[in-house]
Amino acid sequence: MSSSIPLKFGFLVQLANALWRLVWLVFFRISPPFAGAWRRMLLRLFGAKIGFGVRVHATTRIRRPWNLILEDNVRVEPQVILNANGGIKIGSGTLISQYAHLCAANHDYRDPSMRYLASPIVVGEGCWIATDAFVGPDCKIGAGSMLAARSTAFGDLPGGMLLIGEPAIAVRPRPSAAQGSGKI
Amino acid sequence: MSSSIPLKFGFLVQLANALWRLVWLVFFRISPPFAGAWRRMLLRLFGAKIGFGVRVHATTRIRRPWNLILEDNVRVEPQVILNANGGIKIGSGTLISQYAHLCAANHDYRDPSMRYLASPIVVGEGCWIATDAFVGPDCKIGAGSMLAARSTAFGDLPGGMLLIGEPAIAVRPRPSAAQGSGKI
Amino acid sequence: MSSSIPLKFGFLVQLANALWRLVWLVFFRISPPFAGAWRRMLLRLFGAKIGFGVRVHATTRIRRPWNLILEDNVRVEPQVILNANGGIKIGSGTLISQYAHLCAANHDYRDPSMRYLASPIVVGEGCWIATDAFVGPDCKIGAGSMLAARSTAFGDLPGGMLLIGEPAIAVRPRPSAAQGSGKI
Repeated sequence: MSSSIPLKFGFLVQLANALWRLVWLVFFRISPPFAGAWRRMLLRLFGAKIGFGVRVHATTRIRRPWNLILEDNVRVEPQVILNANGGIKIGSGTLISQYAHLCAANHDYRDPSMRYLASPIVVGEGCWIATDAFVGPDCKIGAGSMLAARSTAFGDLPGGMLLIGEPAIAVRPRPSAAQGSGKI
Repeated sequence: MSSSIPLKFGFLVQLANALWRLVWLVFFRISPPFAGAWRRMLLRLFGAKIGFGVRVHATTRIRRPWNLILEDNVRVEPQVILNANGGIKIGSGTLISQYAHLCAANHDYRDPSMRYLASPIVVGEGCWIATDAFVGPDCKIGAGSMLAARSTAFGDLPGGMLLIGEPAIAVRPRPSAAQGSGKI
Repeated sequence: MSSSIPLKFGFLVQLANALWRLVWLVFFRISPPFAGAWRRMLLRLFGAKIGFGVRVHATTRIRRPWNLILEDNVRVEPQVILNANGGIKIGSGTLISQYAHLCAANHDYRDPSMRYLASPIVVGEGCWIATDAFVGPDCKIGAGSMLAARSTAFGDLPGGMLLIGEPAIAVRPRPSAAQGSGKI
């Protein structure tokens, strides 16, 4: 069930986008690895809801941070893309690995002008979005699931599973720490 | 049916490549969003055929622009790669979304030296190549089709369809604006 | 059979990482195309084993070069990522095409802290890792195989084959130069 709505591009939004790009380039992108508190402050200044213990790498490319929610202890590794045009919410303890791409924007392909859509993404608690994985617009991933490296997620995906493929499907339960020495 | 031919690397080509890279870096890459006419002028100066109303983002990475044809109203969003070594032709009204990669070059894997091949790409009118999709060498996509986000296109693909997967296959007709309120 | 072990992050490793990043940025990344010998020297200085005739593009992003082995005549094209955290060994004559990503690192998803794992990659002689392909942690690819553009390799994959898909599977023998005019 799609929850997309038309994406707004009013004057104030464009102004905020331009200002954020400038701040990102000058203050965020070049901040040193240990300046996590500084980056959290910049994100909060632009309206992002950032929990306790969140770590966001300086190379993370973010659109519309005011639509971004990172709960406690979320970790975002280098070179991740968070296109939060339509809103991105990441549950506590989730790890987003390097080069992952979360794209909460779409086009209405039934519209001749291909108008932009704001298409939210929700990733549950304790997930792992692995290296170079892609999470598409309107995608929801249940708590505790793991999206394999390079896999592509669309639609509603269950929690507690190993998700793999293009498009990703739940192939088996994700072994948890509680299960000890389980092997893949 | 492959239409690849060996890719030429003569002195003049190398010189043109080097010159274009320099011009791209100094004049194209850093041009502001509203300088679309300036970027069209630079592309035409290097032999690209650029139609009316074409918009190409400043972050687009282009190889051998003299082999690039963008028909009227083509839009190329940020961070797209257009490797036009073997020629790229994009039909009018087509939208290329961010991070898409069109690669019109190949290697002859039967040749011990893995010589380069020029392998043209043709995308029809009114297509949508969605975010982070990949269009491989020698690929042809029929008019009006939509290649889904992160999908990978090889070979000859039909028009008017939703293309999805790796490799992408036509899964169903693409609902058009004319069909009104169709849902996916 | 996984050969992953916990990845070490001791003080000396962190220091070496920081030093390599600085050297990469200042001396490697901006070196001109013809400075291949200079780049080989820098890699060897940081402990990489680099064979005769190896060519590595200046845009190659490398982690922990002291865990990198490139045998004779290996070629690494632009924008490749070699995450050698857990060790990468590339056999002689192998070609790594642009935007390919080899990731020899993983997380232990059964561990609540998601500790890092060093997960080696071994690519045999005479392979071709094509454009934008991904080679995952703990992956072994046999000699002479070709991983198709945009494909994703996991696990142990055989030699002499065309590997394609996500995850990649061996679809047919790779025609060799010796077989002459074979067609795909």
